[in-house]
Amino acid sequence: MSSRTVHMEQMNWMDYAALIETQPVVFLPVGALEQHGPHLPMNCDEIIPREISEEVAKNIGGLVAPSLYYGYKSQPRTGGGNHFPGTTSLSAEAVIKSVRDVVTEFGRHGMRRMVLMDGHSENTMFIIEGIDLALTELRREGIGDMKVLRIGYYEFTSPETEKVVWPDGFPSWPLEHAGVMETSVMLYRHPELVDLSKLPKDTPAEFEPYDVYPVTFENLPGLPRSGALNSANLATVEKGKLMFDEYVAGITAAVIKEFGLQI
Amino acid sequence: MSSRTVHMEQMNWMDYAALIETQPVVFLPVGALEQHGPHLPMNCDEIIPREISEEVAKNIGGLVAPSLYYGYKSQPRTGGGNHFPGTTSLSAEAVIKSVRDVVTEFGRHGMRRMVLMDGHSENTMFIIEGIDLALTELRREGIGDMKVLRIGYYEFTSPETEKVVWPDGFPSWPLEHAGVMETSVMLYRHPELVDLSKLPKDTPAEFEPYDVYPVTFENLPGLPRSGALNSANLATVEKGKLMFDEYVAGITAAVIKEFGLQI
Amino acid sequence: MSSRTVHMEQMNWMDYAALIETQPVVFLPVGALEQHGPHLPMNCDEIIPREISEEVAKNIGGLVAPSLYYGYKSQPRTGGGNHFPGTTSLSAEAVIKSVRDVVTEFGRHGMRRMVLMDGHSENTMFIIEGIDLALTELRREGIGDMKVLRIGYYEFTSPETEKVVWPDGFPSWPLEHAGVMETSVMLYRHPELVDLSKLPKDTPAEFEPYDVYPVTFENLPGLPRSGALNSANLATVEKGKLMFDEYVAGITAAVIKEFGLQI
Amino acid sequence: MSSRTVHMEQMNWMDYAALIETQPVVFLPVGALEQHGPHLPMNCDEIIPREISEEVAKNIGGLVAPSLYYGYKSQPRTGGGNHFPGTTSLSAEAVIKSVRDVVTEFGRHGMRRMVLMDGHSENTMFIIEGIDLALTELRREGIGDMKVLRIGYYEFTSPETEKVVWPDGFPSWPLEHAGVMETSVMLYRHPELVDLSKLPKDTPAEFEPYDVYPVTFENLPGLPRSGALNSANLATVEKGKLMFDEYVAGITAAVIKEFGLQI
Amino acid sequence: MSSRTVHMEQMNWMDYAALIETQPVVFLPVGALEQHGPHLPMNCDEIIPREISEEVAKNIGGLVAPSLYYGYKSQPRTGGGNHFPGTTSLSAEAVIKSVRDVVTEFGRHGMRRMVLMDGHSENTMFIIEGIDLALTELRREGIGDMKVLRIGYYEFTSPETEKVVWPDGFPSWPLEHAGVMETSVMLYRHPELVDLSKLPKDTPAEFEPYDVYPVTFENLPGLPRSGALNSANLATVEKGKLMFDEYVAGITAAVIKEFGLQI
Amino acid sequence: MSSRTVHMEQMNWMDYAALIETQPVVFLPVGALEQHGPHLPMNCDEIIPREISEEVAKNIGGLVAPSLYYGYKSQPRTGGGNHFPGTTSLSAEAVIKSVRDVVTEFGRHGMRRMVLMDGHSENTMFIIEGIDLALTELRREGIGDMKVLRIGYYEFTSPETEKVVWPDGFPSWPLEHAGVMETSVMLYRHPELVDLSKLPKDTPAEFEPYDVYPVTFENLPGLPRSGALNSANLATVEKGKLMFDEYVAGITAAVIKEFGLQI
Repeated sequence: MSSRTVHMEQMNWMDYAALIETQPVVFLPVGALEQHGPHLPMNCDEIIPREISEEVAKNIGGLVAPSLYYGYKSQPRTGGGNHFPGTTSLSAEAVIKSVRDVVTEFGRHGMRRMVLMDGHSENTMFIIEGIDLALTELRREGIGDMKVLRIGYYEFTSPETEKVVWPDGFPSWPLEHAGVMETSVMLYRHPELVDLSKLPKDTPAEFEPYDVYPVTFENLPGLPRSGALNSANLATVEKGKLMFDEYVAGITAAVIKEFGLQI
Repeated sequence: MSSRTVHMEQMNWMDYAALIETQPVVFLPVGALEQHGPHLPMNCDEIIPREISEEVAKNIGGLVAPSLYYGYKSQPRTGGGNHFPGTTSLSAEAVIKSVRDVVTEFGRHGMRRMVLMDGHSENTMFIIEGIDLALTELRREGIGDMKVLRIGYYEFTSPETEKVVWPDGFPSWPLEHAGVMETSVMLYRHPELVDLSKLPKDTPAEFEPYDVYPVTFENLPGLPRSGALNSANLATVEKGKLMFDEYVAGITAAVIKEFGLQI
Repeated sequence: MSSRTVHMEQMNWMDYAALIETQPVVFLPVGALEQHGPHLPMNCDEIIPREISEEVAKNIGGLVAPSLYYGYKSQPRTGGGNHFPGTTSLSAEAVIKSVRDVVTEFGRHGMRRMVLMDGHSENTMFIIEGIDLALTELRREGIGDMKVLRIGYYEFTSPETEKVVWPDGFPSWPLEHAGVMETSVMLYRHPELVDLSKLPKDTPAEFEPYDVYPVTFENLPGLPRSGALNSANLATVEKGKLMFDEYVAGITAAVIKEFGLQI
Repeated sequence: MSSRTVHMEQMNWMDYAALIETQPVVFLPVGALEQHGPHLPMNCDEIIPREISEEVAKNIGGLVAPSLYYGYKSQPRTGGGNHFPGTTSLSAEAVIKSVRDVVTEFGRHGMRRMVLMDGHSENTMFIIEGIDLALTELRREGIGDMKVLRIGYYEFTSPETEKVVWPDGFPSWPLEHAGVMETSVMLYRHPELVDLSKLPKDTPAEFEPYDVYPVTFENLPGLPRSGALNSANLATVEKGKLMFDEYVAGITAAVIKEFGLQI
Repeated sequence: MSSRTVHMEQMNWMDYAALIETQPVVFLPVGALEQHGPHLPMNCDEIIPREISEEVAKNIGGLVAPSLYYGYKSQPRTGGGNHFPGTTSLSAEAVIKSVRDVVTEFGRHGMRRMVLMDGHSENTMFIIEGIDLALTELRREGIGDMKVLRIGYYEFTSPETEKVVWPDGFPSWPLEHAGVMETSVMLYRHPELVDLSKLPKDTPAEFEPYDVYPVTFENLPGLPRSGALNSANLATVEKGKLMFDEYVAGITAAVIKEFGLQI
Repeated sequence: MSSRTVHMEQMNWMDYAALIETQPVVFLPVGALEQHGPHLPMNCDEIIPREISEEVAKNIGGLVAPSLYYGYKSQPRTGGGNHFPGTTSLSAEAVIKSVRDVVTEFGRHGMRRMVLMDGHSENTMFIIEGIDLALTELRREGIGDMKVLRIGYYEFTSPETEKVVWPDGFPSWPLEHAGVMETSVMLYRHPELVDLSKLPKDTPAEFEPYDVYPVTFENLPGLPRSGALNSANLATVEKGKLMFDEYVAGITAAVIKEFGLQI
């Protein structure tokens, strides 16, 4: 790979215009500004998918667009709920229309290979609607050959890694909010933003198999006050490296396969 | 329980107005009109949550409102994808605003205890946004004490039942689209609508751990042409009864607990 | 006609896909959940157009899709007003977008002949906007040959029937809310849901020739507290049969003519 | 009455601010730019309700706001259909939100008495939704005492006038599009804009009792090519005066009554 | 030029249909109902662009459509702010969608040459979005050759005129709200609506180089209570004529050039 | 000032929650991804307002939230137009609703002092609408004391600086797109992203005093193909420092004054 930046916004438009003729893959990270317990910063849902995007882009000669930083309202069973201070979320329509517009614009530029890299599971369905609306817009402009992947990076965790990271059993992705995976990856990539001395001591979240609204601590007695749904005591930098590298490798392979790249 | 109907729409408004002063729980089924393979009708996602709602309502003196029948666009990894003929879906905004409006109206009537009973997992986040918008509307009308549960009935499957129904291991809820659970429950409740002779013979769905758009068979080589994501060979009427009864019992208990009912 | 169900949702997708190649007419009932006085249930605006749709569909080999059950806000001069408990209505945008989406989906399936069968006059203009938006969507997908009828079934009452049903003069369709026609048809089709002993005794509605908002009994002194705009004393099961049959026959003929069917 | 203008837009804001403390009634005409056959201009649906508003405002010391000139899409059975050149219409959302915003603004000013004077029947339901949304907005700003009338001026035609104007029987308001009433009123108020030599000779419209979409002459064989739904041969300036004066008198009385004015 | 009216709404549709085949330019004024200090009426932002449109239309055989009278919310630094009584504004979506719809309709008629003549600078960006959406709509209907100008008439003031009108230096267009230009033009065109005896004596507006919300006099201490941002003491009828004539001449020339007219 | 980060997303929610009780000022940069000629990267409209925000936040103990990176469609007279590859823009509704949601969320957290720091003039009116909608939302939640500044940082250029930077006369802010100011500031802050060897040689933009749509080079013959509206030949790192420092100082002073800070 050349020394070209993967950051599209750091390029000038003429270099970008020349580059897109080669049909690189562009990654659009979609994040959230969301509480992640007392030991992690609020940027985990943006920083992790963005840095994975950057690494994959380097591997395959791709590009990373600026993140859609803010995401949909945090839910109790996956992120603690939107009532925490700091958690700063968008409505459904803002997420949907932002995704729609950005994907449509890339299509107008001539891009035909996109990856929406999601770091916040509450975004999933709104990203999907945004992609669907964008593909409709593009189709009506005569552009029918855009292909878009939507990736929740954590879905690339292998069973082998699961066993290493959670030797006593994997709790489920929702319960992993601010848990072992995110804490480990942040320890690996941004130890300066992690404060293990603040690891919450409250018990793991206990949720009923349904949702209750409005979201209050009274309505959700099993919701930890710390905002971390599960203990991150087992987090280590080595686990973080293991998982981060696995995500990068797995997504690199997936993107190569889906877009038929010759690397 | 009295012989009163649980179907709110079959009551006259005066009886209804008198009834709501007793604060019954009202159930709003939210469904989908979606292909369920060649052996099942397209109404599974409405008929199952509605009939569960009816049984629970009978148990607790509740009411069932007419279903929001149509749901959000079917997704490949949970329902085969929205490209099948017959699958008839709403946009995000139609689902969100329909839920918002109906919940708000029940609040205006004086209802304070609602259950949105979802039969189509693609609806989840849009129902959540609809509830959130409705609670905001109501709060601004001075109504702050509405409590709403959102239930995906299948989440009430116990580990014991899982072992009975899927002796070789539970495949995951998404892969269960038109699989053992839905086929069994339909066999139990509506055998006239099930045609086991048409059980698809194609291999189970094989999905990558990400989504690909646009949804086409070409883009999704592991998607069965039949629309059934997994074999329903193991479906039986007994399993259907086991699960249906467990859903009714579990949701009855949950509703009693959440709303502090004296039954 | 074959013994095939007219209920599209009871079919599996493969049979449906085969059927639509023959270009059957699909009926989409659009209703309301609305108070209809103390003697009628709240489902009149859905049950009547749906059952008419079913009968017409049987006559012509058509299909009936699940109803869009909820309708636009009840208005005083046509339905008593939206302030009654029980009346449960959608905003304009929810009606419009639901109609738009469902009609568009049928077009995607290959359907080219649709009837929107409306049972709630307040829906009319929102259905029209929904159809218009759907036809625009379809046209932009290259589908220009969808033809859609919007039918308010009561418009098929002949002058001869009017004289029989209202020997002292027809009051007007708006004033007929919960009046002779709906009561008679419900008596004919669903006597178990009608309680003639509760026929309201308040005087007929007296409206000024304009609307007043907000809708309150104080602002509308001529609005009967019962919610029935006119007496249904003259309702009989025979009149119900006369009218129901006339609607079925008239709409059958209209659909045959408009779609050039060979029956 | 003083010599003060009734045109709010011709006042300066300080005089207006002083005036609204006296709680005058403000009229908001809502029109359409719509073909009215070859003998009438396209402004009938704005000019008539506006001039009626002006006369009523003079009678009662009211004010007339600038018209919302454009209206909802013309329909075949009431206005010939939106496919005619010249007919220039808004979508549902544009009408609804414009009405919502303007009514809300008048409430902010301190106005509590409004009349929406509609000249285009296709607008009715969208105006109603706009009023409903505005009253909700205002209520949430602590303003609960705004009262709004929605008037279709033609509903003030008395049975006596009907007999005089249509001696052979009143055809119905929808069929009166560009017919005797509008032609007569325009002859009385704006003879310079009427060209009776161009009165269309095509037969009156013949409509089925349902709507057909898309709107084309092929789909609507009974729709006159001229755009006039009925003959205006019987129109005279005297009839125009009779009706215009009746509308002004009737609406004046209604407004006095509804707002408890002391005139 | 013929004696034909420039007012499209005064034409019948057949004459209009014949005329558009010659591809005249149609002007759509977009205004505001906004306070303009104690000496001017609230209609300045509609009346001036409309009358300029009329004069230009006469010069070039064009047409003027009815104004979109109401505009976006007044801003402190350009119009004093939306908190004044009398100022009556639309939301962003109402302006955008009204512009979108009207421009799209003219495209449907066959018009290919439009001018949106804006009299209220707060409208600018919403008009631009409306035009952009309309051109997208039209393009998808196969109409790719519509050309639209958006004109803020005051941008046609020449440096020479500036020196004459503001001999002590031009203050800036925003500060000219209800200032010398508007007062002069109104004196020239509508002296009966100007009351120079009420010219405000408060000091000119003093604004910081940023906006403060919410808009209150407390938050904006430099905002004149009169609503006029600058003194209009130097306004004269002669200056009004100078500017009005310059606007008409300049815009006439621009329209001739842009549309390649042969006059 | 403490060594605390100004980056809110790098904090954990508990520290953030404690901090907001002291009522710090939070800055929300709003940018654009937009071509800036061949010599500048596409991130100028985000990087400059964000870094100014950071510096001001350091001065006053404030916080900077993650940017809303994408902005409204580039316009020819201020940014070259949205037809350039690379320029990646949002629709009006996406900008408005994203701003509305984020400001509302900060209000929910307890923040009462916000600054929206805009780097892309096309955003201005949409940010204003977003703020207005957010303040309405908050007011209805009982929060009436949020104060928000909207700042276009370039408005803080003093006349003295103008003379130094553009000794031959200031061209106007719109024409400064990718001109002396942005190039100088980028040279000062991010020389690694500036390539002066690519300074475009085409003549400065020449625009008519109106807008033309659709935006094409054919419709806009005076638009430079390079995308830079004016020469940046005079750009220097010293000028960049002069301006950047002036912006930071001026905005610091403004924020202190508006929020009554004790620094």
